[in-house]
Amino acid sequence: MSHRTAVGIDLGGTKIAAGLVRDDGTVLAQAGVPTPAREGAAAILDAVARLVGLVLPDGVDAPGSPGSPDVLVGVGIGSAGVIDSGRGTVVSATDALTGWAGTDLTGGISARLAATGSPAAHLPVLADNDVHAHALGEHWLGACAGTRTALVVAAGTGVGATLLLDGSPQHGARHVAGHLGHLPVAEAAGLPCTCSRTGHLEAVGSGPALHALYLRLGGDPAHTTARAVCEVAGDDTVARHAVVVAATALGRTVGGVANMLDPEVVVVSGGLAGAGALWWDTMNAALATELMPPLAGLPVVPAVLGGDAAVLGAARLALAAHSDTRGAATSLPQDLEVGLDLVTALPSAPSAPRRNP
Amino acid sequence: MSHRTAVGIDLGGTKIAAGLVRDDGTVLAQAGVPTPAREGAAAILDAVARLVGLVLPDGVDAPGSPGSPDVLVGVGIGSAGVIDSGRGTVVSATDALTGWAGTDLTGGISARLAATGSPAAHLPVLADNDVHAHALGEHWLGACAGTRTALVVAAGTGVGATLLLDGSPQHGARHVAGHLGHLPVAEAAGLPCTCSRTGHLEAVGSGPALHALYLRLGGDPAHTTARAVCEVAGDDTVARHAVVVAATALGRTVGGVANMLDPEVVVVSGGLAGAGALWWDTMNAALATELMPPLAGLPVVPAVLGGDAAVLGAARLALAAHSDTRGAATSLPQDLEVGLDLVTALPSAPSAPRRNP
Repeated sequence: MSHRTAVGIDLGGTKIAAGLVRDDGTVLAQAGVPTPAREGAAAILDAVARLVGLVLPDGVDAPGSPGSPDVLVGVGIGSAGVIDSGRGTVVSATDALTGWAGTDLTGGISARLAATGSPAAHLPVLADNDVHAHALGEHWLGACAGTRTALVVAAGTGVGATLLLDGSPQHGARHVAGHLGHLPVAEAAGLPCTCSRTGHLEAVGSGPALHALYLRLGGDPAHTTARAVCEVAGDDTVARHAVVVAATALGRTVGGVANMLDPEVVVVSGGLAGAGALWWDTMNAALATELMPPLAGLPVVPAVLGGDAAVLGAARLALAAHSDTRGAATSLPQDLEVGLDLVTALPSAPSAPRRNP
Repeated sequence: MSHRTAVGIDLGGTKIAAGLVRDDGTVLAQAGVPTPAREGAAAILDAVARLVGLVLPDGVDAPGSPGSPDVLVGVGIGSAGVIDSGRGTVVSATDALTGWAGTDLTGGISARLAATGSPAAHLPVLADNDVHAHALGEHWLGACAGTRTALVVAAGTGVGATLLLDGSPQHGARHVAGHLGHLPVAEAAGLPCTCSRTGHLEAVGSGPALHALYLRLGGDPAHTTARAVCEVAGDDTVARHAVVVAATALGRTVGGVANMLDPEVVVVSGGLAGAGALWWDTMNAALATELMPPLAGLPVVPAVLGGDAAVLGAARLALAAHSDTRGAATSLPQDLEVGLDLVTALPSAPSAPRRNP
């Protein structure tokens, strides 16, 4: 059976991960490097292009090679920052990535792949925000597969949420949609938010905010992360209080947003979602307490793909775009279809394909 | 030039309004009756069917008559309650309409139109929630015409909001989407909400909630409505405080939801939106204070169609469905098109067509 494959990239503030992903979800190869976050956009683009090369190694079983029925169809990138997915550009970004705002992300990668004669040269390169890529992964192979309306919450370094309608992330009018962390909540009253406003969910509900709350309450400075605070919450009453306040703020807000959007399912991902039963149970109970009666029983489930979700979702971007283009092309004149057949024969493949959970 | 027309119905807890609406937005006839809210679903359906007859009078210039190029294409209904717009049924409703939950709304109207030999007999009947119909009207002819992503807030007896994507109201997985009033807000802490939960926006931000807050604060019982409280807020410091609290709660919540959904424009409608400068200015300032920098300058505008919006939007439902069907029908076999030509010649028309604002 013939398979299509794509390279998926998860580009975050601390690391860049890449995977060669088959259209059945099998990850054929993976690679990762620390993000050169302080070295400017060109250095980041260089690192991404090198990673594409690393997951497309020389060999005999590569997608598109004579020995393989697989064909490579493109590269998808889920990137930190506000991404214009139509143009493939970085609209804005925080200081976590120096010089990232304004970058022509897909153009920069395409140019590098062409210049290096990559097997992916001249194939489509697509990009979206990394939280949206994560949600795409969970919709493709994870916790909200098959749903028509899903809210995928990410609670970690920041707090975001992707509204998926028929599997498509909603981007809003300025590519900014998804900033769940910037709803006002009582628990954050007076606290400065990363967005420059005050009193927003992210100022109490993110991992760094939970940790900061713990320290403000007199917690032990030896515990230096939100995860550490969650881990000691069984014995440390200050830690317990901080976890409860942060998880309650998130749960209440998600419950209210569910009343507004009526999703089929809520998926909760990110570092805090896996930080222990106290956080999860508190968040889940606070969420349920806000739901209107018609929403009683709304499924609230943890994400299942873990750190691979954004790589898989980014690959899905490229695979889905290829499907869309192939479908549309059936009625195009022959000379317009040429670009759709730029499928590259690859000289190699990794030796141990693995199936994701 | 030939025009299509449709009957639009706005079915609320206190009144039912009907209009015969042309596809250029002209309202050819209007009628209204008090809602027989305590008499059960059959009485309400009877009243709606009678209103359809009232706006389709005998005469010589009626849509579809030999003297008129206009054709009647259907009936659209915007109704209070949670509406399954696909099936045309009432999923649930508050006690404001006795026995309304479970009603086969479009089926009941179709049966009555057929039984009475109405000119609208056998034409499509469509239904949606009244807040969504209002938003459809504003998108067709009003404050968010031409926008791809709009949030239309209704602040009156309740607090709701329709998210319009490409002009289509989002209904969610259980037809419940739009319940903006059921997000938690600090200003409503501890207050019981109409939905059975506590601490939601609607418990402080709706008209009745604003009035109740005024009385709790020691306001003058001679002022019996939220509008009256707004009117005296210039001289009455208690009234002023109640208006500021209610408007701030709404504005902050809408600002936060805008950060999440990134609409092109926010339209604010409902009784409170027209209740004076103090409410509007306070709401608008609170909203702006929450916006992330990329959303600075988000247009927040009042609705412009007033009480006609839901009638126009309901008519638009039927007009748009007719367009969709005609479009789809061009490739159908001839015998499948018969049902699409059930356009009724009308014997009359009103004498003074008027153009809506």
